Amino acid sequence: MNKANIGIIGATSYTGRELIRLLLKHPYAQILWLSSESFSGKDYSTIYPEFTGKLPVSTLNKLEQLKSQVPDVVFSCLPHGASAKLLSDFIISGKCRVIDLSADYRLHDMAAYQGAYGLKHPFPQYAKESVFGLSELYAQQIASAQIVGNPGCYPTSILLPLMPLLKAGIISELGIIADSKSGVSGAGRSPSATTHYANCNESINAYKLGDQHRHLSEIQEQLNVSSKRAVSILFTPHLVPMERGILSTIYCTFQGGKGIDAADSCLKGQYQNCPFVHIVPHSPKTGDVRHTNNCHIHLYQPANTNTLIILSVIDNMVKGASGQAVQNMNLMFGFPEDTSLC
Amino acid sequence: MNKANIGIIGATSYTGRELIRLLLKHPYAQILWLSSESFSGKDYSTIYPEFTGKLPVSTLNKLEQLKSQVPDVVFSCLPHGASAKLLSDFIISGKCRVIDLSADYRLHDMAAYQGAYGLKHPFPQYAKESVFGLSELYAQQIASAQIVGNPGCYPTSILLPLMPLLKAGIISELGIIADSKSGVSGAGRSPSATTHYANCNESINAYKLGDQHRHLSEIQEQLNVSSKRAVSILFTPHLVPMERGILSTIYCTFQGGKGIDAADSCLKGQYQNCPFVHIVPHSPKTGDVRHTNNCHIHLYQPANTNTLIILSVIDNMVKGASGQAVQNMNLMFGFPEDTSLC
Amino acid sequence: MNKANIGIIGATSYTGRELIRLLLKHPYAQILWLSSESFSGKDYSTIYPEFTGKLPVSTLNKLEQLKSQVPDVVFSCLPHGASAKLLSDFIISGKCRVIDLSADYRLHDMAAYQGAYGLKHPFPQYAKESVFGLSELYAQQIASAQIVGNPGCYPTSILLPLMPLLKAGIISELGIIADSKSGVSGAGRSPSATTHYANCNESINAYKLGDQHRHLSEIQEQLNVSSKRAVSILFTPHLVPMERGILSTIYCTFQGGKGIDAADSCLKGQYQNCPFVHIVPHSPKTGDVRHTNNCHIHLYQPANTNTLIILSVIDNMVKGASGQAVQNMNLMFGFPEDTSLC
Amino acid sequence: MNKANIGIIGATSYTGRELIRLLLKHPYAQILWLSSESFSGKDYSTIYPEFTGKLPVSTLNKLEQLKSQVPDVVFSCLPHGASAKLLSDFIISGKCRVIDLSADYRLHDMAAYQGAYGLKHPFPQYAKESVFGLSELYAQQIASAQIVGNPGCYPTSILLPLMPLLKAGIISELGIIADSKSGVSGAGRSPSATTHYANCNESINAYKLGDQHRHLSEIQEQLNVSSKRAVSILFTPHLVPMERGILSTIYCTFQGGKGIDAADSCLKGQYQNCPFVHIVPHSPKTGDVRHTNNCHIHLYQPANTNTLIILSVIDNMVKGASGQAVQNMNLMFGFPEDTSLC
Repeated sequence: MNKANIGIIGATSYTGRELIRLLLKHPYAQILWLSSESFSGKDYSTIYPEFTGKLPVSTLNKLEQLKSQVPDVVFSCLPHGASAKLLSDFIISGKCRVIDLSADYRLHDMAAYQGAYGLKHPFPQYAKESVFGLSELYAQQIASAQIVGNPGCYPTSILLPLMPLLKAGIISELGIIADSKSGVSGAGRSPSATTHYANCNESINAYKLGDQHRHLSEIQEQLNVSSKRAVSILFTPHLVPMERGILSTIYCTFQGGKGIDAADSCLKGQYQNCPFVHIVPHSPKTGDVRHTNNCHIHLYQPANTNTLIILSVIDNMVKGASGQAVQNMNLMFGFPEDTSLC
Repeated sequence: MNKANIGIIGATSYTGRELIRLLLKHPYAQILWLSSESFSGKDYSTIYPEFTGKLPVSTLNKLEQLKSQVPDVVFSCLPHGASAKLLSDFIISGKCRVIDLSADYRLHDMAAYQGAYGLKHPFPQYAKESVFGLSELYAQQIASAQIVGNPGCYPTSILLPLMPLLKAGIISELGIIADSKSGVSGAGRSPSATTHYANCNESINAYKLGDQHRHLSEIQEQLNVSSKRAVSILFTPHLVPMERGILSTIYCTFQGGKGIDAADSCLKGQYQNCPFVHIVPHSPKTGDVRHTNNCHIHLYQPANTNTLIILSVIDNMVKGASGQAVQNMNLMFGFPEDTSLC
Repeated sequence: MNKANIGIIGATSYTGRELIRLLLKHPYAQILWLSSESFSGKDYSTIYPEFTGKLPVSTLNKLEQLKSQVPDVVFSCLPHGASAKLLSDFIISGKCRVIDLSADYRLHDMAAYQGAYGLKHPFPQYAKESVFGLSELYAQQIASAQIVGNPGCYPTSILLPLMPLLKAGIISELGIIADSKSGVSGAGRSPSATTHYANCNESINAYKLGDQHRHLSEIQEQLNVSSKRAVSILFTPHLVPMERGILSTIYCTFQGGKGIDAADSCLKGQYQNCPFVHIVPHSPKTGDVRHTNNCHIHLYQPANTNTLIILSVIDNMVKGASGQAVQNMNLMFGFPEDTSLC
Repeated sequence: MNKANIGIIGATSYTGRELIRLLLKHPYAQILWLSSESFSGKDYSTIYPEFTGKLPVSTLNKLEQLKSQVPDVVFSCLPHGASAKLLSDFIISGKCRVIDLSADYRLHDMAAYQGAYGLKHPFPQYAKESVFGLSELYAQQIASAQIVGNPGCYPTSILLPLMPLLKAGIISELGIIADSKSGVSGAGRSPSATTHYANCNESINAYKLGDQHRHLSEIQEQLNVSSKRAVSILFTPHLVPMERGILSTIYCTFQGGKGIDAADSCLKGQYQNCPFVHIVPHSPKTGDVRHTNNCHIHLYQPANTNTLIILSVIDNMVKGASGQAVQNMNLMFGFPEDTSLC
């Protein structure tokens, strides 16, 4: 199989680091360059010493110096806004495919983008063409896409179970609650009072309650597509004292006389040939999927109720970010879907 | 003020240990004896070395050897079932008041007790007399009670905000969801695969989903009393990688055209003279109440919804167990309510 | 007993926060003001929400606005350099005693100060008068001191066992190794890459190896005083994934035919009337002294060796900082030594 | 390349689990069976749900039922004593090679074995033939060995730097101190008071001080071989609140006028072609080698001293156990040394 040449923008972020970790084990991937605006000139392993002696390409450079080397695929690990800007030349070149781990190419509704991120999208025409990179549910479109908008971590954990259930009409589109719990790496690499060890450790809190988190916009857009109606969902993210992992505890209501068996069949059918999504008979813990690209989903209907409780766990850095990005690259280049992933 | 003589049954449990820690700072409390069936003869500080040089009474004895020394108040830190049995002689004596940290004296409905705990209550007549020890809401009854059933940790965090709101008719009794997150000390001192460091650390999971946790019985009984209707509530506990703390994220529905302002006034009014319950304007973290007897409550109504999101945090070992037990003792003996608590 | 009026400079630091926590329980202490240059005008509980509803004085002010209100004692929780400068007016006033938690008044050798901290001491005459605030070993001098230099956290854990042993000539002054392990709160409140949760968690590392940590200067000065010879000591601090606690594992060599019994008698004799220092027969864990002002010390002589291994644990925020500061205040004002401490 | 058929005894231990994780990614390894005496009949993924859908062979069986299927190599993850017994039939068969992760085949001095483990070795003749599986230093012997005694986790971290330095005579064989810090997984899977989350978390302690830990026996035997003299070493293990990782901080003394440069050259020379051992210019953290088979070593000589401080970090479950076992298998079967390892 031909190797894919790879460029990584924003390589020093946590998602960049995880991406590099995965790509080093990938037999068909070859890192061409790593870019960083703030650490250019430095060796990558001075920032993340775990890569000492492991990286064939390890010097960080400003993107300007690298642009002439157009790789087969560029991954962007930059924040939204900056990402669309720095990716545009590669998109225009037409010779290169891009996987954007920021939020810039997740939404197709530009008003929703502006509402959530407070800025006008610089390239709405590209946003229209882009494919939402939820690998299992958009595999075909991803395979032929030039631009993939890699989903957020919370949305991945919530959409994998909810989209098929809404599409099949098994659950109501009204009154859905997603109570999600995330490890601290989701907050990114920049130090802050919130991510200080002495603040996070031995403490849990909710933040951006109910309707305030930006990820709600992509959750909403995708659920509306699945349901073909306006879905109402509340989303409460929580910060948990652990490095990695997301657990979403989702409460929804059966409709049309459906119950747990219908939900179970629907999801098992949907994901039967997928190497990473598993419907499990026990309550999963985030530790079960740590450092893997798996999503474990469990369903429960409390006695004498019409309620479906869904538990969904992923590793926010892998299936919730860089692992799914590699999965998308595998789909785009015709590599086996699980190459370098476990 | 006269000092109260104190006996502690099941002193080597985590709640016993926390109780002793609090009572050592209490100017009106005097530990008379500590009992333990499994560690009798041992010095307490060989089990918990933090008490080295701190305990006036430190030898553990079997209860049989201590029964003749009837204290003013006995705290039981035993598991349910065992607790009611070992407390009965003290209750019968009539000379002694008891504060039971187990579940044996929390419920008044004996069928509910048997349903939740799988055993017939050995002393239903005492259960009928007992007072549910949620200090702020039963202060008067506690003051004159002989038997106080100290509430569970999860119930304390859930009932403090919900009971006044249901009583005032501000929220509906239907469709309440309590998504609760607890530190590992709530699982007690016995080692198990679940509480092994390598299992808990860096992982979160839900357990006893929806309708399966025993604490639901006391939550249900108290909410029904407040609401005067049959309340429907789902309760999902989670295990979080931290030693202490509970955060309950509660979703409920406004009724009668009420909204966030009514809820806010109701709770601020209810707790205005209470030293430990605070309605706070920010999303609280469990770290804010760690090692204290406080409960911090925050209210939020997402835009364009009829939903009330309540966040409620306590320290499960203090307000959720031993701190509230001391608070109850203070109420029973006329000591200032916050003596030795912070 | 007359209450002492208290001012706290640098109140928003971690040591300031711990100090306030302790002083709130102190029956003879009254907080007069809290100063902060960066958060002036803010309410203290917006920074540390655990104080919601607890603080009689809660507005932060710039020191300039407070200087006219001279308290009985000022605690400084500022960094070195800044501390000596802001304390000087209070010292000059003559009406006020100061307890400096920074390094500015720990050293009497101004060359050593300049070597360790890279600045010329602004008030060498005050440094000469100041007393090193290791409460148990300088109790008398502290009682009458105007200026107390509160010891560093690492030095406290190392000096409490070593100073009496060196003074008694039981161990050699040569070849001492102190391998110390500290929780993350010791790094202070400012967010940095080092204190980011995802960096600290699940990892341990050494830093400032052997001869590079600033605390070595005060360790060296005090050990030289005890030994009356030039002591040679290596000190390797480590960062451990926990919020609080220091364990120093110290290796030294018996001299003059002395062994474990002599060491044991020496330390038990030294600390027999001290409420906080305990020589324990087991290997102590930092959890044994967490949230207390205690120091637990254990001694061990491996078979067929001349080596003494000392284990010494403290809570770096309490005995290693604010607790010892309160203990020193108690000594200075004639309050019982353990008031508000446990 | 021919695949190696693999049997794993004691598959449900933490080391068994890590071994399976690594072997699943191994292109030349094929798991033939998994044995467990206590969980026979169960599916492996009910014990470790992270393997859901991942294991070709997943039913656990008693060894008795599996003995007829002789694989190419058997890994034993049993405790010492039991391990030698259950491995003996495979050794006798002559058709099968064994890698023992227990202590049974690490020592060649049977008196030392009996001293450390309190039992007479059941197969001293096999112990004599066995090779100590420190991959980098015994690569040739391992390649042709039938029996490999996989080293302990602490010894691996200590021996990799010390053996070459002692052999080269750069450091003295006297007065070596190894102060080691380990994560909790090193204590194994059995729940105990020590490994309870609420006991480990937020606490560090030393245990088995100086001369009491069993691993000292293999450290001593190997160091004596390297030095050709009787080495004197003290070893103090510590339990750190993290799942994985060992940091050994080692203090030793230069001899023969040697210093840091000689030590640096010696180790860089020794390990220049080794993919996993890296001499690094910064103080390494255990996080740098987490989930990898790497050992990062740093050297420091404090100014004006003759002391060498060595920092050595590994992942106790990988290079300290199952990763090194796979590395040994790779050497034994002629697979590239780093196959399936990173």
